[in-house]
Amino acid sequence: MMASEEKQHRTIEPVNHEVREQARLHVDQLTKPLGSLGRLEELAIELAGMTGEAFPVVTPPGVLVFAADHGVAVEGISAYPQEVTAQMVLNMAHGGAGINVFARQIGALQKVVDVGVCSPVEAPGVYSKRIRAASGNMLREAAMSVEEAERSLAVGIEMAEAIIDEGAKVLIVGEVGIGNTTASSAVLAALTGADPQTIVGRGTGLDDAGWQRKKAVVREALALHKPDADKPLDVLAKVGGLEIGAMAGAILGAASRRVPVLLDGFIATVAALLAVKIDAGVSDYLIAGHRSQEPGHAFVLEALGKEPLLDLHLRLGEGSGAAVAFPIVEAAARMIKEMATFASAGVSDR
Amino acid sequence: MMASEEKQHRTIEPVNHEVREQARLHVDQLTKPLGSLGRLEELAIELAGMTGEAFPVVTPPGVLVFAADHGVAVEGISAYPQEVTAQMVLNMAHGGAGINVFARQIGALQKVVDVGVCSPVEAPGVYSKRIRAASGNMLREAAMSVEEAERSLAVGIEMAEAIIDEGAKVLIVGEVGIGNTTASSAVLAALTGADPQTIVGRGTGLDDAGWQRKKAVVREALALHKPDADKPLDVLAKVGGLEIGAMAGAILGAASRRVPVLLDGFIATVAALLAVKIDAGVSDYLIAGHRSQEPGHAFVLEALGKEPLLDLHLRLGEGSGAAVAFPIVEAAARMIKEMATFASAGVSDR
Repeated sequence: MMASEEKQHRTIEPVNHEVREQARLHVDQLTKPLGSLGRLEELAIELAGMTGEAFPVVTPPGVLVFAADHGVAVEGISAYPQEVTAQMVLNMAHGGAGINVFARQIGALQKVVDVGVCSPVEAPGVYSKRIRAASGNMLREAAMSVEEAERSLAVGIEMAEAIIDEGAKVLIVGEVGIGNTTASSAVLAALTGADPQTIVGRGTGLDDAGWQRKKAVVREALALHKPDADKPLDVLAKVGGLEIGAMAGAILGAASRRVPVLLDGFIATVAALLAVKIDAGVSDYLIAGHRSQEPGHAFVLEALGKEPLLDLHLRLGEGSGAAVAFPIVEAAARMIKEMATFASAGVSDR
Repeated sequence: MMASEEKQHRTIEPVNHEVREQARLHVDQLTKPLGSLGRLEELAIELAGMTGEAFPVVTPPGVLVFAADHGVAVEGISAYPQEVTAQMVLNMAHGGAGINVFARQIGALQKVVDVGVCSPVEAPGVYSKRIRAASGNMLREAAMSVEEAERSLAVGIEMAEAIIDEGAKVLIVGEVGIGNTTASSAVLAALTGADPQTIVGRGTGLDDAGWQRKKAVVREALALHKPDADKPLDVLAKVGGLEIGAMAGAILGAASRRVPVLLDGFIATVAALLAVKIDAGVSDYLIAGHRSQEPGHAFVLEALGKEPLLDLHLRLGEGSGAAVAFPIVEAAARMIKEMATFASAGVSDR
C-alpha cells in the first residue's frame, strides 16, 4: 500500500477464509458428482470468501460507466472522431448502447458518469462529476495533475459507494472515451514494463498505419514522462485518463466494502491493476469477466493472475463483456444456495 | 436422410439465408465498432437464419430432461450405484438438482421425462413415457430393439413438440441415467470410428481401474454387435440408451419446428450427432453451449463442427451447462433487437 500518496484510500479487509471453507464443504454436499460444476464451484467459494457470506447474494449487480475524453485523440490514434464520446454518453442516457441492453438483461442498477468529456453532457441520468474537460495530450504534457488523478479516484470511490448503498451486490465498471485504449496501453506499459509493441492493439478498429502511430505515441509518451512504476498516481497522472482513474477508484471502493468486482475488458482490467498497485488487497475481490480481443488484455490478466469466465471475442468495452458474464456469477451463487444436498434429497453419495 | 428407416421423421427446412443476411446488415448498423461484439454478433445472425426472424425471440427456453437406466451399469462402469437415477429424478421433481436451479434462473419451461428408469418414478411433474425398464446390458445383448429405438425417438419428438407448443423458443435437452456416458461413448465410437481409448472418460468420477473397465466394456460391446455406422437406429438399438434416443428425437423435433437447440455436454451432443446422422439438416439448428470435461465431448463437437460458448470445466449433465450458457444466447437476441443504430442514436460511424 502506497501510504500517504493516497488521500482517498479505504481499508481493504482480507477475504474471510473461515466462510470460504464453510462454502467449500457445503459445495461438496450438493447433489452432483464431486467437482462436476467446475468453475461455478470455485466461483461460489470465492464469492463466499469475498462477501463473508456462505450463501453470497450477488443480485442486483451495479454498473458504473465512466466517460471522459483524451487529449491524445488529436494524434490520430482512434478509428472514431472524438465527438463520439459525447454521442455515446447520450446513447447510454437513452438506453441504446450495448451496456444498457446487457445491464437490463441482468437487472442491474446503472449509472453513467461524466468525469471529463470535452463538453459537458447534460441528459437525464448522466451524473456530472467532471474533473476537467478531457485529459491533456500525453505527447506534449501530463494527462492530468496528481491532484486531478487523486480526484478521479475519489469520484470513483464516491460513485461505487453510492451504487452499493442503493443495493448493488457486485460491481461492474465500464467506460467510454475515444482514445482510451492508448492511455490504458501506456498505463499498462508503465506499471509492468511491457513492450508497447506487444500490448498496443487496434482499439475500435485502426488500420495498419494508425496502429503503428498508436504504438509510437505510447512509446514517445513513456519516454517523455518516465512515469514511476512504483507510484500508481504518477503513472495515472502522466499517461492515464480521467475515466481510468475513476474506474480504479470505484474498484477500490467496492473492495473496501467487500463487494466483488466483475471485470470487463482491457481498459477496466488496467484500471484494476492500478487499484491493485495502490492496495494489493484489492486483487482478492476481482473476478475476470471475459477475455477481450485487445492484445494487451491477456497480458494484464496474467499480471493479475486471473482467468476469465468468457472468451467470446468481444472488444466493445462499456462494461459490456462483464455484464454478459454476470449470469455465470449468478449461477454460482444460486447453485450453492438452491441445490439440494445428498442428505436433504435422499440421494446416495456412492 | 435415412429414408424408410425413420418412421418418425419430420421435414427439416434449410435456414433462411435472406433473413440471415438482413440480420447481418442490421448488426453492422448498431452503435459499436464493427465486429466488436464478436460471437454475440454471429449468434444473433445464426438465430435469425434458424428462426426466420431478423429479430429472433429466444425466451422462454424449454428444458427437457430424459431419464433412463442402463443394463450395462452392472458392469461397474459408474462411480454411483444404479438407484441414483431414480433418486435424481425425484430430486428434479422437487426442484433440487443443478438443472432445476439453472432453469429457474433463465425462466425456462421444464419437463422431466421417465423413458425407462428401472422402476417407474411417480412424482408430480415427472412425465411417464416409459419404453422399457432400463436398456439391456450391451455386453450381452442389444440395448434395445430397433422398434424400441424408434419409440424413443418418437417420445423425444412428442415432448419437444409439447414444450414448443407451450411456448419454448429454444430447446435444451438434458439427461440423467447412471451408465449413460458408457452408452454415449459406444454410440460415438460406432458412428465415427473413434477409438474408445481416446473418447471414454471417467464419467461421474471413476477411479483408474473403473476407467479401464469402462473402455474395455465399450470395445467389447462394439466387437459383439458390430453396429452399422450408416444406420443410426442400428447404433442406437445395439449400444445406445433410451434417454439418448429420446434426446435425439427431441432435437429432430425442435429442428423441424425451426427451434434452435442449445446443446449441453457429452451425452446431449452425442444425441445431436445421432440426430444429424438421421437428417443432416439438423446441424444448422444446433448451438454448442459448453465444452465438457468429458474427453469425448471435444471429439463429438469437432465431428459436428461446433465451437462451444462456454468452457467452465463442467461435467454434470442434466442440461446444466446449456442452461448456464443460455444467457449468452439471450444477450445476442437482445443485442440485435434493443441496441440503437448509428442513425437512430445520432452517433458518427467514422
